[in-house]
Amino acid sequence: MAKKASSSTRKTKPPPAESGAFLWTRKDLVGLDELSAEEIVHILDTAETFKEVSTRSIKKVPALRGKVVALMFFEDSTRTRMSFELAASRLSADVLLFTSRGSSVTKGETTIDTVRNVEAMGVDIFVIRHGQSGAPHMLARKVAASIINAGDGQHEHPTQALLDVFTIRQRLGRLAGLKIAVVGDIAHSRVARSNIIGLRKLGAEVVVVGPPTLVPSAIRAMGCEISHSLDDILPQVDVINMLRVQFERFSSNLFPSVREYSRLYGMNADRLASCRKDVLIMHPGPINRGMELTSEVADGPNSCILQQVTNGLAVRMAVLYLVSRGRT
Amino acid sequence: MAKKASSSTRKTKPPPAESGAFLWTRKDLVGLDELSAEEIVHILDTAETFKEVSTRSIKKVPALRGKVVALMFFEDSTRTRMSFELAASRLSADVLLFTSRGSSVTKGETTIDTVRNVEAMGVDIFVIRHGQSGAPHMLARKVAASIINAGDGQHEHPTQALLDVFTIRQRLGRLAGLKIAVVGDIAHSRVARSNIIGLRKLGAEVVVVGPPTLVPSAIRAMGCEISHSLDDILPQVDVINMLRVQFERFSSNLFPSVREYSRLYGMNADRLASCRKDVLIMHPGPINRGMELTSEVADGPNSCILQQVTNGLAVRMAVLYLVSRGRT
Amino acid sequence: MAKKASSSTRKTKPPPAESGAFLWTRKDLVGLDELSAEEIVHILDTAETFKEVSTRSIKKVPALRGKVVALMFFEDSTRTRMSFELAASRLSADVLLFTSRGSSVTKGETTIDTVRNVEAMGVDIFVIRHGQSGAPHMLARKVAASIINAGDGQHEHPTQALLDVFTIRQRLGRLAGLKIAVVGDIAHSRVARSNIIGLRKLGAEVVVVGPPTLVPSAIRAMGCEISHSLDDILPQVDVINMLRVQFERFSSNLFPSVREYSRLYGMNADRLASCRKDVLIMHPGPINRGMELTSEVADGPNSCILQQVTNGLAVRMAVLYLVSRGRT
Repeated sequence: MAKKASSSTRKTKPPPAESGAFLWTRKDLVGLDELSAEEIVHILDTAETFKEVSTRSIKKVPALRGKVVALMFFEDSTRTRMSFELAASRLSADVLLFTSRGSSVTKGETTIDTVRNVEAMGVDIFVIRHGQSGAPHMLARKVAASIINAGDGQHEHPTQALLDVFTIRQRLGRLAGLKIAVVGDIAHSRVARSNIIGLRKLGAEVVVVGPPTLVPSAIRAMGCEISHSLDDILPQVDVINMLRVQFERFSSNLFPSVREYSRLYGMNADRLASCRKDVLIMHPGPINRGMELTSEVADGPNSCILQQVTNGLAVRMAVLYLVSRGRT
Repeated sequence: MAKKASSSTRKTKPPPAESGAFLWTRKDLVGLDELSAEEIVHILDTAETFKEVSTRSIKKVPALRGKVVALMFFEDSTRTRMSFELAASRLSADVLLFTSRGSSVTKGETTIDTVRNVEAMGVDIFVIRHGQSGAPHMLARKVAASIINAGDGQHEHPTQALLDVFTIRQRLGRLAGLKIAVVGDIAHSRVARSNIIGLRKLGAEVVVVGPPTLVPSAIRAMGCEISHSLDDILPQVDVINMLRVQFERFSSNLFPSVREYSRLYGMNADRLASCRKDVLIMHPGPINRGMELTSEVADGPNSCILQQVTNGLAVRMAVLYLVSRGRT
Repeated sequence: MAKKASSSTRKTKPPPAESGAFLWTRKDLVGLDELSAEEIVHILDTAETFKEVSTRSIKKVPALRGKVVALMFFEDSTRTRMSFELAASRLSADVLLFTSRGSSVTKGETTIDTVRNVEAMGVDIFVIRHGQSGAPHMLARKVAASIINAGDGQHEHPTQALLDVFTIRQRLGRLAGLKIAVVGDIAHSRVARSNIIGLRKLGAEVVVVGPPTLVPSAIRAMGCEISHSLDDILPQVDVINMLRVQFERFSSNLFPSVREYSRLYGMNADRLASCRKDVLIMHPGPINRGMELTSEVADGPNSCILQQVTNGLAVRMAVLYLVSRGRT
């Protein structure tokens, strides 16, 4: 695999996607918005080959040996951090962890100075989570190292969307022509945004579902349908991606009560009964049992929530690998 | 060593302990309560072989290369975490660290969901510290990965007891027939509980010593003697294991004053003089100098406190190694 | 390189510095005060050879494979910690991180007990940052492991000074005969102290510059000139090292207002115009843009701030390597 990619990274323009012959030339992954359908498919295909590594007894390849991956989490995250950390370890990279607690950030240093400073230590790839939308894009323009967006404000969370798309493709065999519901707080969700972008590019239909206060009508411009009734769309969809509810938002008046939300937009056995038999239930985690979905649904045969997590590792290995080749 | 163990993990029931021929079949180490005397001895013998690794110039073996050990500390710990981290590194495992600060735990996710989620990333062994007694046992039943209990509530802390037992055997040559005092807050101590269980299984006598408020009489059911006078038992015992005093408990009325506690239950030079000459003084650390013991005792020739720490590494390497074989 | 150093560590007294033939015999680096000029030069020369490693595609050497480096940060630090962590990784050491948050430190354990305890786990080298001046020196006397001072109170920060000196030598070709200004809060700065000591030993002139409240006249005893006017000394100096302003000190009455400080002691384009053309502008970071220096100066051709960071890695690799040889 290393050889195939190496021979393909020198050219400049991606040709139309062909199995294996595609070229990756980007040093960064800041969002799905920037990517062509071919590039997205290429990441998924690369992840496929890395999935095999995770099934080996010794789950390591030397692809990034001697490279340094810095995880810069200006916002807290447990699972995304662990997933990237493990992905980097499996590629034999050295990993540096930076979290904003008790760090120079609180000493008034700018984000770009912090990142440039760490880059000067010899970092090859930055994985950035940041509260400000667009921070990874700004950094990608200003530093020579690779930048991977691990979530920026309410903007994008590309690797989450890639692992979602990967999982759908794995379970249902394709994306084109499928109808996917994204349910919850669409207005504030970078997971929703990146999903909509990725799914549309790969030819899937998307319907976003939630209370009017949380589903801005401007979202239609992204090429998706809007519904305020989960029950209405259940029989039509192949996949239901339940967004995590941020409890802290219930204090605002955008949100109905916890009980009301769960009654209107929570997945349960009854609702599952009115879905297609092989409907796929997804959730980016961590789940609030009894809120976005009942345990019956979360742990049932239609759920692929843990598979999403497993696939996240392969997708992040692929992204780390590709951006590192994109720099040379 | 690897070969020996590998050939022995397939069978199902442990035969009586014989040097080297014993079989380890468990995927977990949740407590000493579950183990036979033979299994405990097998861990100690395995630790003996790992002790040698730590004396080499390059202190590493490839036993867990490509495996992932996740340290999940739902409760804070510095030294236990560092000891397991180093033990895993010496076995060439990749280590993931999870602490409950700023993590999804605070977002209302259940422990089992958190652990299952991390397991889905491809973790082979979990080292769990948790405030709830029994949490590791519940997890061991529900996940396929190995679970090692690094302290659960007021229940068990098996690797601490194993390293204590290992140290006694190393210094005094045997366990059977020895008399060991465990001194302090017996009621709330998982270190005390695991020690009592382990020592009794290996044929040692145990006397627990402390103020009546901190030594429940029900503890007698574990096969140990009770004393409320340290002075009374000093001449009879081979080992004195001083439990750490939790200062926060002094605010409760279970505890005498700091001064009173130290006067009645602290080890000092005078008390040492009435002990057997080769009495062993132990403490799980961190010590409160002048409280559980004076500096004269802590740093004197009878103390094996730092040896306990050193042995902890070998014991944890052994446990990590054995549970990883127990899964295959 | 390994061979050269190995053959030179057995003898006991350092001969006068000769290229390559110098002997390093110390197990610790606690301050520049203890070092001879020859020893400082030897560290710089060793760092030179490690700088090359960082330019390789696989930035790793096996020099410390199987050794354990424990980073003990009793005080917070992001960049110094990351720099040492990466330096240790590049030498293939295993790294253990200890920070004082939520650790046994808060449980009343003494620093020496904490360090001895971690040492008992098999640590070879400690990197210590501590709020108390002299803590690393005390530890160096009491433990067998190597101690590297990563900043102690208001006393020394030797690796920062070494990387500063390394950078000056790299950019200007020598130290002897140069005139270097250290600007800011001299009274409370360990960076200033270590710089003055190192620069004086290598034959450079030092002028310290700052408001009278922050420049104690006793500093003259360290062999440096004192000035209270930055403008006065600008035309005379080869290097200007701007100390970081600690905002929290502005509440004290030692400090002028933020605006006043910046007006009197901040570097800007106007001031740069009255300097020698090739004057070197340094800063230990993190910088407060618009305070110690304007962005024009910080990002201009005279600035070597990021180079300092890059060199810090090579210097720390050298120090880790040398103290590890000094022990054998």
